[in-house]
Amino acid sequence: MKPSAMFATATLLAAAAVAFAAATPLPPASAAPLAPTPPMGWNSWNHFECKVSDAVVRAAADAVVSSGMKAVGYQFINIDDCWQGQRDAQGNIQPNDRFPDMAALAAYIHSKGLRLGIYSSPGPKTCAGYEGSFGHEEQDAQTYARWGVDYLKYDWCSATGDQRAAYTKMHDALLRTGRPIVFSLCQYGWYGVWSWGASVGGNLWRTTDDISDNYDRMSVLGFAQNGLERFAGPGHWNDPDMLEIGNGGMKDDEYRTHMSLWCLLAAPLIAGNDLAAMSPATLAILTNSEVIAVDQDTAGIQGHRVAEEGPLEIWIKPLADGTKAVGMFNRGTREASMTVRFEQLGIGESASLRDLWTHRDLGEFHSSYEAKVPRHGVVMLRVRDSSLR
Amino acid sequence: MKPSAMFATATLLAAAAVAFAAATPLPPASAAPLAPTPPMGWNSWNHFECKVSDAVVRAAADAVVSSGMKAVGYQFINIDDCWQGQRDAQGNIQPNDRFPDMAALAAYIHSKGLRLGIYSSPGPKTCAGYEGSFGHEEQDAQTYARWGVDYLKYDWCSATGDQRAAYTKMHDALLRTGRPIVFSLCQYGWYGVWSWGASVGGNLWRTTDDISDNYDRMSVLGFAQNGLERFAGPGHWNDPDMLEIGNGGMKDDEYRTHMSLWCLLAAPLIAGNDLAAMSPATLAILTNSEVIAVDQDTAGIQGHRVAEEGPLEIWIKPLADGTKAVGMFNRGTREASMTVRFEQLGIGESASLRDLWTHRDLGEFHSSYEAKVPRHGVVMLRVRDSSLR
Repeated sequence: MKPSAMFATATLLAAAAVAFAAATPLPPASAAPLAPTPPMGWNSWNHFECKVSDAVVRAAADAVVSSGMKAVGYQFINIDDCWQGQRDAQGNIQPNDRFPDMAALAAYIHSKGLRLGIYSSPGPKTCAGYEGSFGHEEQDAQTYARWGVDYLKYDWCSATGDQRAAYTKMHDALLRTGRPIVFSLCQYGWYGVWSWGASVGGNLWRTTDDISDNYDRMSVLGFAQNGLERFAGPGHWNDPDMLEIGNGGMKDDEYRTHMSLWCLLAAPLIAGNDLAAMSPATLAILTNSEVIAVDQDTAGIQGHRVAEEGPLEIWIKPLADGTKAVGMFNRGTREASMTVRFEQLGIGESASLRDLWTHRDLGEFHSSYEAKVPRHGVVMLRVRDSSLR
Repeated sequence: MKPSAMFATATLLAAAAVAFAAATPLPPASAAPLAPTPPMGWNSWNHFECKVSDAVVRAAADAVVSSGMKAVGYQFINIDDCWQGQRDAQGNIQPNDRFPDMAALAAYIHSKGLRLGIYSSPGPKTCAGYEGSFGHEEQDAQTYARWGVDYLKYDWCSATGDQRAAYTKMHDALLRTGRPIVFSLCQYGWYGVWSWGASVGGNLWRTTDDISDNYDRMSVLGFAQNGLERFAGPGHWNDPDMLEIGNGGMKDDEYRTHMSLWCLLAAPLIAGNDLAAMSPATLAILTNSEVIAVDQDTAGIQGHRVAEEGPLEIWIKPLADGTKAVGMFNRGTREASMTVRFEQLGIGESASLRDLWTHRDLGEFHSSYEAKVPRHGVVMLRVRDSSLR
């Protein structure tokens, strides 16, 4: 796909610029961009849904530290829907009974060297029917900042009208707090959001419907990301939804595919399992530092597909040091022998390969590499052109 | 994907050739190849499963004629699993009580100008647990020919061992009957069958797991066919499974996507609904002669994807007259405005377009064409380069 898009990008950007110009003056953007690499953390929804509480969130923070997840980069502890109570007489949002003191919770999270995320909607109600931010955007942004919130997932849900205007309104409100708050747009991939998400201040935006914890759903979302790579980069990321790793609906090979694909996509890595009760296999998948390094590479280039033969796909992600991360994916239901040819990777005569799941140097290969790939599985490599110094 | 495949094709073909050479002498192949265009017809499984009978099959044949489906090319009336009874003392397969006289049924089908298909397995049992052909391949082929069968779907099910050897054995047996019988390999896309299906005499081979009657499943199978186009051609076709159109699990836009995609893929068009009770909308989708003409084009070139932007995909199928069939697919959950650029189609300055679902000439366009495409829907075009005579 060449730069002239299937969506009418130029028109949309122009409209967004108009909306921007009409807003009240904003403080200058901070020098350090938010989310220079894809955000990493945990979110309560995929496992706990509305059964979230102060205790659940603290336990998640504790587990991120004790499990070693913090050490490999997981940082945000994000409360999803269902934390909201009523507004007070002045219209200030209050947490519900399950969150007795949000500022104290934030302080606890910060004391662990982690950051706190929260959730709202541009509509009057959230997806679960709790209080949304409609008509209270400035007030809510100020409240979040006062509590010490570092990340806002803003979920379309009951909202109506122009998405760009609604997201711009909250983004401006967040900017006026003076607190750096990562802004996560959640609108299920509607209206070609990738072509305008950055223009309304989004640090990430959902490119898909909701994920669920099964291979078919995960794979149909993840492998459909091809062609969106030109819209992502440092500070603004495509988001194919949060991780389901460890929630029990997929086999380990399938979860390795999930993790590998999300990392090749430079996708946000927001774990969604019960961290206090995860298996060693789940932890090993979530904390594979060599695979995470692909996701967090400073060049911030989203990967794309370079070859496809029915259920067999080869994806590449160029990395800052000149090496290339490569995924050999078998979407079929039987083990397959797959070959990646170096010319598909833009690599010359020979290359040295490392397997990022077995953590082994495979040695130097000429012109191609063949591997057996399990059903629904992946072989993930880091490939260094031998002509590189 | 360049000709050197992800599967080790050469090795597989060599092995198949060895198996071929070891067989007893075969009659010369007939001059006219079987299945010069993708087979069209009906199969009992997707709607009736095991509730199939002589009456159901006759009713389907009657409906193919009376509905106008025969007039647009549907020809094969295929009995799927569950027709088999026991073998007699000589080992000859007998139909069960629901099929009192298979030869009479074949004669009835033939009297309508249609052809009869039947079903078996290289294993001892079929998928539904009925008698398979294992150890009776020659005998079963002779029986089918004696009855007047024109098409065999041969479903792996309980079989074990080498697939190529098993399919070669039945193909040789079919050839020795002297009756032209279309040979349909059904093995769920295992072992890169596309690279060897033609070498074992397959006229079509399943490239996928079973379809089911919902958009997610249909689309994950259909859109994953990209890259297989170089394995298909007249007499040997990739088969992404039978149609679910009219079975009730998808909306009409989704069924139009199903039909459009299968036609762009030069896939077999085997309807799987209850033809005696179909809605006008279902019939209109199944009998759109302009879309069917894309499938049945004599060049026999399977289409492929030329552009992809997340859920938006553009596919092309070059046709024998130099025009190009184009599908603009929106896999997303909101209507989208999509643009196809003529350079993506290998077309110069200007082209005249016809919409194959609205049956309207759209006129001449320069450099690109933009259309609104419904959620899960398609706009399907026939595009004629204005420089074509």
